[in-house]
Amino acid sequence: MEFGDTGSTPKGAATRNEILRVAADVFASKGFEQTRMDDIIREVGLTKGAIYFHFSSKAMLAQAVVDEQKSRWLRRVQEEILSKNNPLEELRSLGEFMVRTVLSDSSAWGVVHLANQLASTKEHPGGASPLAAWVDLVAGILQRGRASGVLAFSGDPGDAATVIVAAFDGLKSVTDALDPKDLDAFERRANLLLQFLEQQFISSQ
Amino acid sequence: MEFGDTGSTPKGAATRNEILRVAADVFASKGFEQTRMDDIIREVGLTKGAIYFHFSSKAMLAQAVVDEQKSRWLRRVQEEILSKNNPLEELRSLGEFMVRTVLSDSSAWGVVHLANQLASTKEHPGGASPLAAWVDLVAGILQRGRASGVLAFSGDPGDAATVIVAAFDGLKSVTDALDPKDLDAFERRANLLLQFLEQQFISSQ
Repeated sequence: MEFGDTGSTPKGAATRNEILRVAADVFASKGFEQTRMDDIIREVGLTKGAIYFHFSSKAMLAQAVVDEQKSRWLRRVQEEILSKNNPLEELRSLGEFMVRTVLSDSSAWGVVHLANQLASTKEHPGGASPLAAWVDLVAGILQRGRASGVLAFSGDPGDAATVIVAAFDGLKSVTDALDPKDLDAFERRANLLLQFLEQQFISSQ
Repeated sequence: MEFGDTGSTPKGAATRNEILRVAADVFASKGFEQTRMDDIIREVGLTKGAIYFHFSSKAMLAQAVVDEQKSRWLRRVQEEILSKNNPLEELRSLGEFMVRTVLSDSSAWGVVHLANQLASTKEHPGGASPLAAWVDLVAGILQRGRASGVLAFSGDPGDAATVIVAAFDGLKSVTDALDPKDLDAFERRANLLLQFLEQQFISSQ
């Protein structure tokens, strides 16, 4: 639970959002364990008291970063993608959305890993994993697509969705490990992956 | 650089191997940062002096775990897989080998992540990444397979190989995060991934 003002005034909300934005970057570059509240306090340029007024601990702050980004993404996906009401177009748009998100904001996909790191700590506040939300989203599209005959695949939609989300997640981690900061390499490989998925899942009927 | 006996006598070699085996498990379960030399010393049941006789620091020990497993895997792959001299069979066998390795030894794939964690620390002794070795191996098979007409794909073999290795690596991490210790889920999804790769890369001519 947080204490203090969680954004009930416009100024409070702006401060809270600024802390979340900066914290997302610091967590993404240092990892949850290695980040200290002091690192974030220094970067955000507020007093210790001002930060702790909004977030009672590092774990609470990290969970708020995860929750805020998860709800922002799901809202955008709802508006831009699921509104198409066409599973084939939804799958294509979702793939492009994921690639665009990673390319436009270096800390964006890091939030997924922050959630995993947080889940393995003692202080875990217990929010659901954004990875699980992505898998559910993709599984829903696959299921509707197979029912309407535009998508074809064997096995359980949840397993197929996990393979897709995991391939994307792995591509981000592996490219970060082998070719750090090489966004061109990520984009080239991600497009190759989308092309594989297109050939794999689009029904040939 | 290590100091002390690195295994020049049979007894020294046995002790060194036992330390490496235990350390691989401890690093896999706690991660590099969270592991202390004392944790490994306790698990292995030797004196502090005996461990430091073989490995001068935690980073050196972790690098030795990575190097030992990498050379063991590459030797097995060389003997069991590349000896087939048939890129199609090699790709299939390699996929099965990776799945079998993960299923038979819980810390096996963790070594890949240990290498990544190590690479991001100040104390990194500077060994090459096992991920890069896997990518090179797969890229070589893809290249020979395309040249001989049994494998078909567009783009650079290195990029396609990275997508394959990353899909596998991501599947392991994502299944660990969403369904910890569910080896059945991993096996089911890994077989789905191998089936996708089979349909994707095998030339239809």
